Amino acid sequence: MNFNKDQLIHYVENIFKTVGLSSKDSHTVADSLVAANLRGVDSHGVTRVPIYVKRLKEGAVNPRPNIKVIQDNNSTLLVDGDDGMGQVIGQKTIEIGIEKAKKNGGVHIGVTRSSHFGAGAYFVKQGVEEDMITFAMSNAPSTMAPWGGVRPYFGTNPYTFAIPTGKKEPIILDMATSVVARGKIIMAAQNGTDIPTGWAIDNKGQPTTDSNSALKGTVLPFGGPKGYGIAMMIDIMSGVLTGAGFGPHIKNIYGDFDKPQNVGHFFQLIDINTFMPAKLFKRRINQMIDEIKLSPAVEGIDEIFIPGEIEHKMEQTKRKNGIDLSKEVYDDIKKVGADCGVDIRDYEGKRNDTIR
Amino acid sequence: MNFNKDQLIHYVENIFKTVGLSSKDSHTVADSLVAANLRGVDSHGVTRVPIYVKRLKEGAVNPRPNIKVIQDNNSTLLVDGDDGMGQVIGQKTIEIGIEKAKKNGGVHIGVTRSSHFGAGAYFVKQGVEEDMITFAMSNAPSTMAPWGGVRPYFGTNPYTFAIPTGKKEPIILDMATSVVARGKIIMAAQNGTDIPTGWAIDNKGQPTTDSNSALKGTVLPFGGPKGYGIAMMIDIMSGVLTGAGFGPHIKNIYGDFDKPQNVGHFFQLIDINTFMPAKLFKRRINQMIDEIKLSPAVEGIDEIFIPGEIEHKMEQTKRKNGIDLSKEVYDDIKKVGADCGVDIRDYEGKRNDTIR
Repeated sequence: MNFNKDQLIHYVENIFKTVGLSSKDSHTVADSLVAANLRGVDSHGVTRVPIYVKRLKEGAVNPRPNIKVIQDNNSTLLVDGDDGMGQVIGQKTIEIGIEKAKKNGGVHIGVTRSSHFGAGAYFVKQGVEEDMITFAMSNAPSTMAPWGGVRPYFGTNPYTFAIPTGKKEPIILDMATSVVARGKIIMAAQNGTDIPTGWAIDNKGQPTTDSNSALKGTVLPFGGPKGYGIAMMIDIMSGVLTGAGFGPHIKNIYGDFDKPQNVGHFFQLIDINTFMPAKLFKRRINQMIDEIKLSPAVEGIDEIFIPGEIEHKMEQTKRKNGIDLSKEVYDDIKKVGADCGVDIRDYEGKRNDTIR
Repeated sequence: MNFNKDQLIHYVENIFKTVGLSSKDSHTVADSLVAANLRGVDSHGVTRVPIYVKRLKEGAVNPRPNIKVIQDNNSTLLVDGDDGMGQVIGQKTIEIGIEKAKKNGGVHIGVTRSSHFGAGAYFVKQGVEEDMITFAMSNAPSTMAPWGGVRPYFGTNPYTFAIPTGKKEPIILDMATSVVARGKIIMAAQNGTDIPTGWAIDNKGQPTTDSNSALKGTVLPFGGPKGYGIAMMIDIMSGVLTGAGFGPHIKNIYGDFDKPQNVGHFFQLIDINTFMPAKLFKRRINQMIDEIKLSPAVEGIDEIFIPGEIEHKMEQTKRKNGIDLSKEVYDDIKKVGADCGVDIRDYEGKRNDTIR
C-alpha cells in the first residue's frame, strides 16, 4: 500500500494522540518514524507503531514526561527523560544541545530514563542545520554477545553522526554496531524470509540463516572485536555514565511491559564556527566529497557512495512517489489504528492529491 | 635482543636529544614508543625511531615547535602543533585538555599541523588518571580506499578511547580503522612474512597476502562500509575541521621529506564527576566488566576479554621480563643510534640489574 508521507504522518500522529501524547509529541514521534521510512530504513519506521502503542497502553512508557536537565555544567549536561517516548526525549535533547553549543561551542549530553528513540539520523540532521557536527548514540536491549561469548550482553547500540556540507544532503552515518540492525532481522521474520550468513548466531552460538532462530540467539558485532569495543563504549557513555540501564539491565521493548526500558543516550554537538568559518569548512568537506566521488571504483562497481547518499536518494524518490508499505506492516498498523479508533482508509492513496 | 624498558627509553631519548629535541620532549617521544612495545604494539614502538630521526634531520619535523592554543572557546579548542613531533604535540594537548575538562566538565580539542603521534593509548591513559573518559583520534597518510574504490584516499585513521575503572587497568580500545594497522603490514614486510587474506588489496584492487604488494596497494577498512564511514568521520574531525591536511593531502611519513606531514588529531575529555560521582561510575563499570568476564564463551574459547586487557597483561610480563626486539628492528635502531653517536651496547641486557 502506498502512502503520501504527510498522510502517513497524520495517520500515525492521530494514533498517538489517542494514547495520551500531546499533539506536538505525537507529531514528533510520527514525523521521526516516517522520516526513517523515507530514508528506506523501514526497520525503524512505522513498523514500530504497534509496539510503541502497546507500551504506552500498558504504562511502560510515560505519555506526558517531565523531561528536564538534572546536571548542567554548560559543556556537559545530563537529561532525565522521565520514561517518556525516546523520540520525544531525543527531540528535546537535540534542541537543548543546539542552544548550549551555540553559547559554548561544544557540548556532551547524557540522557537517562529514556526509551527506544528510533533512527538517530532524525536528531543529528537538526544539528547540521545550525552548522554543528552532531553525534548521537544509544544503548539498547541486550541482543549481542561480547566478542567470543554466546549470551547476549550488549544491544545493537547505534552510532550516528552528521556533518554539514552546505547542501541539502549532509554526510550521515546511522549504523547499528551489529553487522545489521536487529530490526532488519525482525523485518525478515515478519516477512518470513531468511537472513544472510554472518548476521547472527543462534542460542547455541552456531551461525544461522533462519530469522526466527537468529531472534532467539545473538547478533554479531560489525568488524569483530573492534565493533564489540565500540558497542561497549556506546553502552558506557549512554548507560553507565548517565545512570540509565546498561547491558542486560535494559528492559526488552517486546516484553517487560510492566517496566520502563531505562535506555540511555549520548549526544555531542560541536559548533564548526569555533574551529573555522563554516563556509570554509563546507568548501573543504565538498572538496573531500568530490575527490572521493571521482576516485576510481573497483571493477563491477558503478559508483562510490558517501555515507547517507543512498538514503538521501531514496528519500527524494519517496517524497515524489510515496512510501510503499509491505502487506504485513500495513495490516499491523491498520489494526492498531482501528483499536485506537483511527481508520487507516482515511489516509490512503492520496499520493496524487498532495505532492508538494 | 632483550631490553629493560627503562634502558630502552634512555637509549631512544638520547638519540632524540642529538637531533634537536629538548630533554623533556626526547623523553616523551621515547616513553611513548616504548609504552607501545610494552603493550605488544611493536608496529608503533621503537621501530619508528629511524624514520622519525630521518624526518627531523631532513627538516620535515620541527624539533622545537611553538605549540599553542589558537582558538579557545573553553569547551572547544584548536591547537597549532607547529609541525613538531606528534608525540610532543599530543602530550601537550592532553595536558591542556585535562586542565580544561577539570574547569568545564568536557572539552573537544582539534589539533592542526602535527605529525604521526604513535599509539593513541599513551595519551588517553593520562585522562583516565583524572577520572575522565578520554578519546583520541588522528588522521594519517592515505593508504585506504573509500569503500568500493581502488585508490587510497583515507589513512588507517586510529580511534582510541580509555575508560576509568578504578583499577590499574582501564578499558582501552586503540584501533586502526583499517582491518589492521598499516604498521603491522610494514612489520611483516620488514620480517619478510606474508599477511592474512582480507587485510589489504594490491594496486589493482585484487586481494593479496604478499606484504610488499599490500604496501603498494590499499588496506581495507574494518567492518566494510561502516568502518569506511568511521574512518571518514575521523578524517573530518582531525583534518577538515582543524585546517590540517586530509585524505591524500597528508604527506607520507616514508617520503615527502621536504614537507611537514600536516597531520591533524581530535581529542575529547569528559569529567565523569559532572555526570555522577566517579566512585559510583567505577562501581557500575566494574559490574559491567565482571558480568562480561563471567558470561559463557563459545566452545573452544577460553576467556572473553575486555578491550585493553590483553595489552595490559602483555605489559605486566614485559615490565618483568624485558622487551624483546626482532633482529631487524634491533639492527635498524642500532644503526640510527650509531649515526647519532649513541651506542646501543651501553643499554643492552641490563634486565637483571634493573628490575623494579
